[in-house]
Amino acid sequence: MAENKVLLDHGSGGKISHSMMSDIILPLFNNPVLAMLDDGAVLDISDISSKKIAFSTDTYVVDPIFFPGGNIGDLAVNGTVNDVAMCGANPLFLSVGLIIEEGMLISDLKKILKTMADAAKKAGVNIVTGDTKVVPKGKADKIFINTSGIGILPDNVNVTGANAQPGDKIIISGTIADHGITILSSREDLKMTSDIKTDSAPLNYMVKAIMDSGNEIHVLRDPTRGGLGTTLNEIAAQSNVEIKIKENAIPVKSAVAGMCELLGFDPLYIANEGKLIAFASPDHAEKILEIIKKDEFGKDACIIGEVLPEKSGKVYMETLIGGTRIVDMLTGEQLPRIC
Amino acid sequence: MAENKVLLDHGSGGKISHSMMSDIILPLFNNPVLAMLDDGAVLDISDISSKKIAFSTDTYVVDPIFFPGGNIGDLAVNGTVNDVAMCGANPLFLSVGLIIEEGMLISDLKKILKTMADAAKKAGVNIVTGDTKVVPKGKADKIFINTSGIGILPDNVNVTGANAQPGDKIIISGTIADHGITILSSREDLKMTSDIKTDSAPLNYMVKAIMDSGNEIHVLRDPTRGGLGTTLNEIAAQSNVEIKIKENAIPVKSAVAGMCELLGFDPLYIANEGKLIAFASPDHAEKILEIIKKDEFGKDACIIGEVLPEKSGKVYMETLIGGTRIVDMLTGEQLPRIC
Repeated sequence: MAENKVLLDHGSGGKISHSMMSDIILPLFNNPVLAMLDDGAVLDISDISSKKIAFSTDTYVVDPIFFPGGNIGDLAVNGTVNDVAMCGANPLFLSVGLIIEEGMLISDLKKILKTMADAAKKAGVNIVTGDTKVVPKGKADKIFINTSGIGILPDNVNVTGANAQPGDKIIISGTIADHGITILSSREDLKMTSDIKTDSAPLNYMVKAIMDSGNEIHVLRDPTRGGLGTTLNEIAAQSNVEIKIKENAIPVKSAVAGMCELLGFDPLYIANEGKLIAFASPDHAEKILEIIKKDEFGKDACIIGEVLPEKSGKVYMETLIGGTRIVDMLTGEQLPRIC
Repeated sequence: MAENKVLLDHGSGGKISHSMMSDIILPLFNNPVLAMLDDGAVLDISDISSKKIAFSTDTYVVDPIFFPGGNIGDLAVNGTVNDVAMCGANPLFLSVGLIIEEGMLISDLKKILKTMADAAKKAGVNIVTGDTKVVPKGKADKIFINTSGIGILPDNVNVTGANAQPGDKIIISGTIADHGITILSSREDLKMTSDIKTDSAPLNYMVKAIMDSGNEIHVLRDPTRGGLGTTLNEIAAQSNVEIKIKENAIPVKSAVAGMCELLGFDPLYIANEGKLIAFASPDHAEKILEIIKKDEFGKDACIIGEVLPEKSGKVYMETLIGGTRIVDMLTGEQLPRIC
């Protein structure tokens, strides 16, 4: 039945676009700024004393769009919430840009938008402006979602990938590779154990607790595409330092580790969507670790390595058998459309 | 040759993604914030006294991606610059989210990114954060671009589609239907006269001149998808007023009018990408018109109608032959993928 599917008309900007906005989108994302229906959102920041904002964007093209533990909708909200938070900022506002393939089931669209609304509520951010485009069947794959986010940065924060310092301890907030292995297993229709689901989660409360504590933090980064291995390489290069991690310290769920072994993937390069890496000064690392562990999404946090004084820009790993190997950036594409 | 095409690897987040960023994107969009390569941009707004920001997003899926007068790149920059400006704000920062189809020519991508960089420079905005995804061949159509923008709102501005007031004069900044007819003609490979090209242009300097003049302005809106007819309907509904326009006052280039007649399209519903509608108090309308006419993109500006005291939420047009007809919103899809 055609009325159950998204039509090209839904993206026309005309009457049917407006009915989709008023019938489907506004009730779910309801907030007064979005309901103004202007070309942009006007946001009052007068109660904010800070003079810096953080701004980030990410487009989500994950395949499949539904998977154990979530769907493309909460992935898109949490992903940008986290990117803003990784600047040390407190995310407040999100935009949503939808590209929908003609013929998508309206029930699927509603389910995704509902998940986005719920994820935004959980993260404490408002979806304040948006845009919907519909492209003819075969010109996109079901739905692609862009989210952009604005956050407010506390004063005197200098959290950046370029700020890693010799002696820093490296904390990971939990197990790695959950998201990527979930997507891969869903796509290949592999039999999954109940232990494997996406780790997609908002990390902004965890970051706020760290920032509010006053402990010295130098780098925050979420190891998404490219995984922990690539992210550590980015930081080593940006900060011109050497990083050393210990394989036996890196938490991986046994079901995920088993799947990685079965499929021939290295968990170091598999995407995460609800984990962060924190580089903390050695005196403050234990305190920050305790703060992270208190967060709903940080229970399995631990210290996995440290920053060495060498200026090699490289990442090394002490392996399980006691050797040392270089951890390079991901080369080539392991898993397309993982987020 | 494979090296001339975008590969899935370019979207992996790994080594080849990074080389695309450093070899292609950074040199074009060069600015210190983007070059930080963090997950988000940290923006200093300490020299800004205003306490309101404007935030807007738009995704561009235009087909074809190259057309007379521009390409998807400047369209994406100008479109979001204009949406932010239509809030009465001064756009400063843009994000760019790319979805690229595997196999796209790198030369085409470079050309588009170069156009984006040039358009951003012309509009005086900085591209400060971005994201690139690559999807397998056949899962998107060449390239889709999302841009989101942040602007600063002067104090005491209340420009919104909900603020049209009885007596307001309605100004259009130039000829209508240029962009939509350009795209349609390109797509159908119709023989085009040199008069027909996109009107894509940044309108932020025009808006700033209006705002700085202190003249009373109630509504600013750019009539993109759905055209002038749909945009006026949106404003009539948001403000709960009646709008009357005069057909003989609406500027349409003769080549565009001819093409509309030939193809059976009503120029009222054809997209514009470099025009604005301004609702101004009657005492200030002529002064605002003069300001618009002085702008590079406002030479053909004129007053096309006014706001009546009736609360019908409808739009009427006095036709060329002296009758009056209702102008409804666009129903159905005239032109998919026009922007």
